Amino acid sequence: MKALWSPTGRIGLERDFWIAVMKGQRELGIAIPAAAIRDYERVKSQIDLGSIDARERVTLHDVKARIEEFSGLAGREFIHLGLTSRDLTENVEQLQILRALRLVQWKAAAALHGLAAQAAAHRNLLLTGRTHNVPAQPTTLGKRIAMFGEELLSAYTRLGELLDRYPVRGLKGAVGTQLDQLTLLGGDFKKTAQLEQRVLKHLGFKAALGAVGQVYPRSLDFEVVTALHQIAAAAASFATTLRLMAGQGLLTEGFQKGQVGSSAMPHKMNARNCERICGFATILSGYVTMCSGLAGHQWNEGDVSCSVVRRVALPDSFYAIDGLLETWLNVLGQMTVFPAAIAAESERNLPFLATTTILMEAVKAGAGRETAHEAIKEHALAAAQALREGGEAALVERLAGDARLGLGEAVLRRILSETHRFVGAAPAQVDHFVTTARTLAKAQKGAARYQPMKLL
Amino acid sequence: MKALWSPTGRIGLERDFWIAVMKGQRELGIAIPAAAIRDYERVKSQIDLGSIDARERVTLHDVKARIEEFSGLAGREFIHLGLTSRDLTENVEQLQILRALRLVQWKAAAALHGLAAQAAAHRNLLLTGRTHNVPAQPTTLGKRIAMFGEELLSAYTRLGELLDRYPVRGLKGAVGTQLDQLTLLGGDFKKTAQLEQRVLKHLGFKAALGAVGQVYPRSLDFEVVTALHQIAAAAASFATTLRLMAGQGLLTEGFQKGQVGSSAMPHKMNARNCERICGFATILSGYVTMCSGLAGHQWNEGDVSCSVVRRVALPDSFYAIDGLLETWLNVLGQMTVFPAAIAAESERNLPFLATTTILMEAVKAGAGRETAHEAIKEHALAAAQALREGGEAALVERLAGDARLGLGEAVLRRILSETHRFVGAAPAQVDHFVTTARTLAKAQKGAARYQPMKLL
Amino acid sequence: MKALWSPTGRIGLERDFWIAVMKGQRELGIAIPAAAIRDYERVKSQIDLGSIDARERVTLHDVKARIEEFSGLAGREFIHLGLTSRDLTENVEQLQILRALRLVQWKAAAALHGLAAQAAAHRNLLLTGRTHNVPAQPTTLGKRIAMFGEELLSAYTRLGELLDRYPVRGLKGAVGTQLDQLTLLGGDFKKTAQLEQRVLKHLGFKAALGAVGQVYPRSLDFEVVTALHQIAAAAASFATTLRLMAGQGLLTEGFQKGQVGSSAMPHKMNARNCERICGFATILSGYVTMCSGLAGHQWNEGDVSCSVVRRVALPDSFYAIDGLLETWLNVLGQMTVFPAAIAAESERNLPFLATTTILMEAVKAGAGRETAHEAIKEHALAAAQALREGGEAALVERLAGDARLGLGEAVLRRILSETHRFVGAAPAQVDHFVTTARTLAKAQKGAARYQPMKLL
Amino acid sequence: MKALWSPTGRIGLERDFWIAVMKGQRELGIAIPAAAIRDYERVKSQIDLGSIDARERVTLHDVKARIEEFSGLAGREFIHLGLTSRDLTENVEQLQILRALRLVQWKAAAALHGLAAQAAAHRNLLLTGRTHNVPAQPTTLGKRIAMFGEELLSAYTRLGELLDRYPVRGLKGAVGTQLDQLTLLGGDFKKTAQLEQRVLKHLGFKAALGAVGQVYPRSLDFEVVTALHQIAAAAASFATTLRLMAGQGLLTEGFQKGQVGSSAMPHKMNARNCERICGFATILSGYVTMCSGLAGHQWNEGDVSCSVVRRVALPDSFYAIDGLLETWLNVLGQMTVFPAAIAAESERNLPFLATTTILMEAVKAGAGRETAHEAIKEHALAAAQALREGGEAALVERLAGDARLGLGEAVLRRILSETHRFVGAAPAQVDHFVTTARTLAKAQKGAARYQPMKLL
Repeated sequence: MKALWSPTGRIGLERDFWIAVMKGQRELGIAIPAAAIRDYERVKSQIDLGSIDARERVTLHDVKARIEEFSGLAGREFIHLGLTSRDLTENVEQLQILRALRLVQWKAAAALHGLAAQAAAHRNLLLTGRTHNVPAQPTTLGKRIAMFGEELLSAYTRLGELLDRYPVRGLKGAVGTQLDQLTLLGGDFKKTAQLEQRVLKHLGFKAALGAVGQVYPRSLDFEVVTALHQIAAAAASFATTLRLMAGQGLLTEGFQKGQVGSSAMPHKMNARNCERICGFATILSGYVTMCSGLAGHQWNEGDVSCSVVRRVALPDSFYAIDGLLETWLNVLGQMTVFPAAIAAESERNLPFLATTTILMEAVKAGAGRETAHEAIKEHALAAAQALREGGEAALVERLAGDARLGLGEAVLRRILSETHRFVGAAPAQVDHFVTTARTLAKAQKGAARYQPMKLL
Repeated sequence: MKALWSPTGRIGLERDFWIAVMKGQRELGIAIPAAAIRDYERVKSQIDLGSIDARERVTLHDVKARIEEFSGLAGREFIHLGLTSRDLTENVEQLQILRALRLVQWKAAAALHGLAAQAAAHRNLLLTGRTHNVPAQPTTLGKRIAMFGEELLSAYTRLGELLDRYPVRGLKGAVGTQLDQLTLLGGDFKKTAQLEQRVLKHLGFKAALGAVGQVYPRSLDFEVVTALHQIAAAAASFATTLRLMAGQGLLTEGFQKGQVGSSAMPHKMNARNCERICGFATILSGYVTMCSGLAGHQWNEGDVSCSVVRRVALPDSFYAIDGLLETWLNVLGQMTVFPAAIAAESERNLPFLATTTILMEAVKAGAGRETAHEAIKEHALAAAQALREGGEAALVERLAGDARLGLGEAVLRRILSETHRFVGAAPAQVDHFVTTARTLAKAQKGAARYQPMKLL
Repeated sequence: MKALWSPTGRIGLERDFWIAVMKGQRELGIAIPAAAIRDYERVKSQIDLGSIDARERVTLHDVKARIEEFSGLAGREFIHLGLTSRDLTENVEQLQILRALRLVQWKAAAALHGLAAQAAAHRNLLLTGRTHNVPAQPTTLGKRIAMFGEELLSAYTRLGELLDRYPVRGLKGAVGTQLDQLTLLGGDFKKTAQLEQRVLKHLGFKAALGAVGQVYPRSLDFEVVTALHQIAAAAASFATTLRLMAGQGLLTEGFQKGQVGSSAMPHKMNARNCERICGFATILSGYVTMCSGLAGHQWNEGDVSCSVVRRVALPDSFYAIDGLLETWLNVLGQMTVFPAAIAAESERNLPFLATTTILMEAVKAGAGRETAHEAIKEHALAAAQALREGGEAALVERLAGDARLGLGEAVLRRILSETHRFVGAAPAQVDHFVTTARTLAKAQKGAARYQPMKLL
Repeated sequence: MKALWSPTGRIGLERDFWIAVMKGQRELGIAIPAAAIRDYERVKSQIDLGSIDARERVTLHDVKARIEEFSGLAGREFIHLGLTSRDLTENVEQLQILRALRLVQWKAAAALHGLAAQAAAHRNLLLTGRTHNVPAQPTTLGKRIAMFGEELLSAYTRLGELLDRYPVRGLKGAVGTQLDQLTLLGGDFKKTAQLEQRVLKHLGFKAALGAVGQVYPRSLDFEVVTALHQIAAAAASFATTLRLMAGQGLLTEGFQKGQVGSSAMPHKMNARNCERICGFATILSGYVTMCSGLAGHQWNEGDVSCSVVRRVALPDSFYAIDGLLETWLNVLGQMTVFPAAIAAESERNLPFLATTTILMEAVKAGAGRETAHEAIKEHALAAAQALREGGEAALVERLAGDARLGLGEAVLRRILSETHRFVGAAPAQVDHFVTTARTLAKAQKGAARYQPMKLL
């Protein structure tokens, strides 16, 4: 990602672009010697930022400086024929975006694999499901993970749709009328279209915009950055819940070997990476605002009030999503679940969460529905009160001791141990997610085995 | 749009939902008498907000109040079996969103038709193209309009993609495990899935989410609202440029018959509707921020910190985009172009914009390239200076009077009158846009002939 | 708050404004009969929205309709002399803002009192302080509450500064040059200034802007809404932490008598109001974006692209902050702390958090520092591991059993019971906050005893 | 600004902080030899980022690495006694913010001087005031500039208020209870307070927060960044209007000597710097969203989900505002007004804008009011129509030729030439702004003469 957005990386893409244009122009009859193109190709990797800077201080024009440098190296003057600066910069920036989006797609596929693996691993691990952050109904840890995976699936699908049609501005000239290419190609509309097609194909775009001005519509940048934010949202929902669970001691996002919490508190396992994931999502929300401040603000055929904003928002959005995905992949690879702690939590909560089932069993055993309901309610409230007073809930004992229900402690414990009765379709949903995720992500070769960068 | 989001409209959708669930449950073997369903259907339009409010003051629970009201009217108690509140509210809200999105799609199609009509009407009208708000190169008015149409095309396509796959949460229960429906249906996973499918089909959804919690992921709301903002952006770019053009007296967004600018200044034609369009886009940017503040913030299986936000951001986003589209359609229907004023502007600017062509002709006529270039540059700068000093540019006269160029005034005026030489592919781009827009928009029946609401 | 922003409330303020202007004009020599002013005053409360609407359908101009209505009621024609529409609307909207800000200030003062009371009540209640959501060091609950109070203090101070200088646009005419008032007052600059001063004073403003256009700068709206968001942030930090604590069963935000969690789970105490507070803060962040989309976008002397945005963002921001403050005051009044549950949590964590103190005591008792440090670290890690395996930490027992430390269980328990040794300056900080908050809030008469509206 | 936020700059501030703490601790009785402090002071400027990085790769802890480096250089081990990482980082970051805010204040004062100079220079230059971007009423260019200056005055005042009370977190320890400093200072609360006071004073803060957690409230960052955005808004309103005026050829933001518009169009004077100013404001709006996403999201005593966001949003906000101010100061220094072009615009519009005055004069000359009003309206509409048809308005001629008015062309031209009759209090408002701005800005020594950096 850094290579893509670095000055050197960008200049490399520009030179590729110029060469693609020259080749197209030559094929369409413009007098550009094949040897000249070879001369440019020969030197295209000689990127000397210092020399370009020096030229810019003379020309006071960045594109001009880069033209002179490249032509100087090649000893030729055939690039940039019939082009304006924006023909270069718009297309090259869109190329950066396209390639960066593909990288995001690839790493998001890796995240889908990671989520599928974790969901599958904890498919049946009974967990206290929470709404309003309060115990609500049982679920499984695998299902919880699949739930965040499902959020990623939507974002991933949207990203794929965008990539399938992301349209490039093309060779459109100063105000979008293609005047200069047309003039160069003798007023031949067909040739103008062919030239654009060849350049597009070379760069890997599937589509070009038709009627544009000096620039492509900035709402397209908004679309790109919001697609990134949507991916970040799935990660942040996951990370937020991991932070909550870490606070209860149910799991850790993973410690690298030898790492300790802090010198004073060696046992303290902070979910710092998950916090960072949430932070990256917040960063992206700011770039969404920047891009929403550009979208819809075009003046006539275009101005450059967007320029300084895009120079910040585009690379930095991609750096943020890349940092987020790398962090997430680390967490997905290293997170460590404490099943015993999760079971202890379930044990405290399950009696409360299973009251409906207990009611049913009491009725089966002969109790009156209303009577049983009243009895259970009394004990649940009393048990909750006991907890608040620092005591034990002892709900099973309370229920077992009530003749109105007619269920002994052994029976109750047996019911509570039949955890499959409480998790509904959670395991089946896990299976469904795992299959879907793996199928979708398969198209990204190698993503399943990607090892994320080590975090500091 | 108002009907869709009104309390009455929502309660209507809820009742449709409950009936759909009952029908599905009955077909799958739950003992719900057909006559009971008919009783509910019979009273479903009797919506009495006062009565529901009164019930809520007793139950202190909104969904409960609405259940009691509906069952009270029908004299039956078969709705909401095995459902939690969120099974109702999530699905009904998504139904509101789905239908509202379809309405937006339909009106956006009407806007595409309107843009196509205006672009076609002004296909060849020579216009001073501007970059940095300063004359840059000629274009045509039709092309300028097509350019904003092109921005809408991208947004329209994205909206279509979203609508094709917008997934509903479905009947998933308190924490998403489908426990209660499963229990109701005797633990039969297949039946649970069938029930969900039937309800979905009834509501018009094409897809359901798999693994969810109490709620569907809020990044889906973010996706919806950003799709709306993207449509708004196309409109706002268009409207901004109209405001600029109105300020130069080149056109008006349209006056209703008999309307005057202001009592003090009857000739003053303010682009108020275009300003309003820009305002609506700004409003949507705020709702984007709200939804980005929900996306990625899910705690465990869900909380309701999103609730109060969605109650504001969702309906109000749709009201904003609807107001924007209605306003835009009015402008597209009523805008009045002043070709003479546009021509006068072109006449002032064309000599400047045509210097490349003039150079070419001078060379053809025998002048040396360098000499001619120098002469033209001198005169262009002098003419620009004259304008700044309050005089006339008189660039043609200046050029005609310079022997270095060898082009008389008559020749120069002839060159300048051959306007097709200056607009490049603009008319062809218009044709391409018009065809594309009409083809895409055709699927929305009746949109081409839609008459927007009259504005105040 | 509703009265202030309702159509009726606004028309009342408009009429007050017109009367103030007439009085000022009369005093400065304009021929307005005193009886005419009395006629207007007599009818100023007769606000008939239907009649005004009917007039607007004829005039197609909202301000004109309201002028005709008021003059029609009074049977006079002396209002709006030398005014443009914006002289009316800008000033009246700023008056709404000013009064709404004062109401916010007053309720924020009530919140300061509420926080002070809760902080004082729990000044010494030992609590497990958490960073990264993980136990870190002891604090007291009072201190934690004071911490959020401190955040409110900053926001409250900022709001006060804004109120002390919030400047009104004044009577500046169509483009801000005061031309019409000057003409009316015979070109007398001094009188123009006097008129403005009198109107300002009447309305309760302390300052007027000098050089403005048709409108006052919209960055002033941005300042207002960000001041509201800052208050909301303090509340949301508080509410977020309460949601975390409620999830651990340490407290509840308060149940109204007889309220139960849900029919299925009567003991479930959801922090719904705290969630709502967080939601209101998110709503405000969206209005911040809207206002940031207006600030800095003035065209020349002003346009009305801001109009539709302000009509949404201003009242709705104030409704949001008002809803937030009412909710918060309810929580502050009703929150119920479970000291026993908090103590139980402390008991689990204190041994870990007190290791530094234990080390010191071991050294005092004769152990070598390095040896003791190593022993404590071993036991802490082992205890943490035991917890993760679902067992008991039993850290005290582990430490007591280690001869290297030389501290028996009784000694250790005594150390741990001397909780004042662990909370540092927390109680003193509470005292400082309580004093500061009460002193600052005192200026808002009656705020200390304000009873918030009952929530649904 | 770059020095302040650079890694080297930051480490310099950290070392200053540590030295200040040591001095305070020594004075309060902690056994730190004076010679040790001198050793640290001696090496404090030896900042070797490479060496620190190498240490961090070993310790895996950034603060630890910097402690070791500094102590290693000094050959002592007395820094960071009783401090946690956040005691260092929070205070140092706030110090960066404080100093950066002061720099912004200083450059904003320079902008006030620049605005005052430009407003004064064009105090009486008649200009067509515009609302809705359409001619509305005359004003002066000086007044228009003062209007944007007035917007800056509000932002500047707010910034001053913030700087007067910007509170630092202080030495509060891991969860804010000051436990470690208290322990170090023998439990002496007074000494703890004294130590904090001394450190504050050394750093230049006027106030400390009382009750905080691990971190200071992030709504304080929101306050800072919104204060910056408010300044940016004033600049962006100014810049937007300059872009509009440049598009009409009324002025240029300034060309550096020898600069030409573009090679193809040497006369083209793009308002690129003004566009850039608008871009910087948009950038800041994104950082506002980021900080609004942190404010109100504190978990307990603090987490670090804010960390990665602040590392982006804080320095980059200050870079953006600094870039904006530098650009603005360039424009204010170089903008070139074309009085003749402005006069030509006024001539076209003044007859329309002066109709009220003409009516008054016609009545004075004996015409009936209603008759005269009707005549003027007819001619104004006809003249406007003529303009739209590409002709001349010739409103004066039309009015002069109408016997109903009884005003000859000479009389009409005289009236129109008495421009002071049309600009109202505009010049007086300029004087008032100039005085206010200069008085307020005076406190920033040297700001009036600041020469901004040359832009690329």
